[in-house]
Amino acid sequence: MTDNHPTQSLDDTVHQRTRLGILAVLAEGSRVQFGFLQEALGLTDGNLSRHLSTLEEAGFARVEKGYEGRRPRTWVHITRAGQRALAAELDALRRLIQRYDARAAGPEPD
Amino acid sequence: MTDNHPTQSLDDTVHQRTRLGILAVLAEGSRVQFGFLQEALGLTDGNLSRHLSTLEEAGFARVEKGYEGRRPRTWVHITRAGQRALAAELDALRRLIQRYDARAAGPEPD
Repeated sequence: MTDNHPTQSLDDTVHQRTRLGILAVLAEGSRVQFGFLQEALGLTDGNLSRHLSTLEEAGFARVEKGYEGRRPRTWVHITRAGQRALAAELDALRRLIQRYDARAAGPEPD
Repeated sequence: MTDNHPTQSLDDTVHQRTRLGILAVLAEGSRVQFGFLQEALGLTDGNLSRHLSTLEEAGFARVEKGYEGRRPRTWVHITRAGQRALAAELDALRRLIQRYDARAAGPEPD
């Protein structure tokens, strides 16, 4: 029997590979262009849009349309709730890694 | 523009929350009972079976049926390929966390 396993604290909304990447990149800036996100993560338009919708519905990201000069731009930013969710995800992953490393350092008897 | 983002190295077969938990628990022992895995991760029979099938198909885990005395038992163990896949996943997560922590330590100018 173990205490709550670190992976039980993972939330699929944040943990899913692409969305984890999106939130991590968003956390690096105050706001990020749609095209930058796409390139940073190697995503198609449709794939990025779909995952952004999921993150918006969860309240973790916000998409804003605007202009830079005359060029239409789509900006994305992470919300406070998104920052908290990302921090919680990374904390759970840290615990997972620590547990794995502890096992590698010294195997249990038997 | 960034180099290959850490989340691009994640493989859904291993990264998926439940399967990541299964592989992590399996990595802690030479073989683990089905019921132990279930309890350690808070999974139903069906859910665990389904994810074990995915891991078996990928060659990352093996399920063996046998007896302990007269009691039928199902044992699960991680394969070498599974160990490598788990190590690769955790390395990618480590890079993700390091990058996040570096950002938190000192924001870039502007």
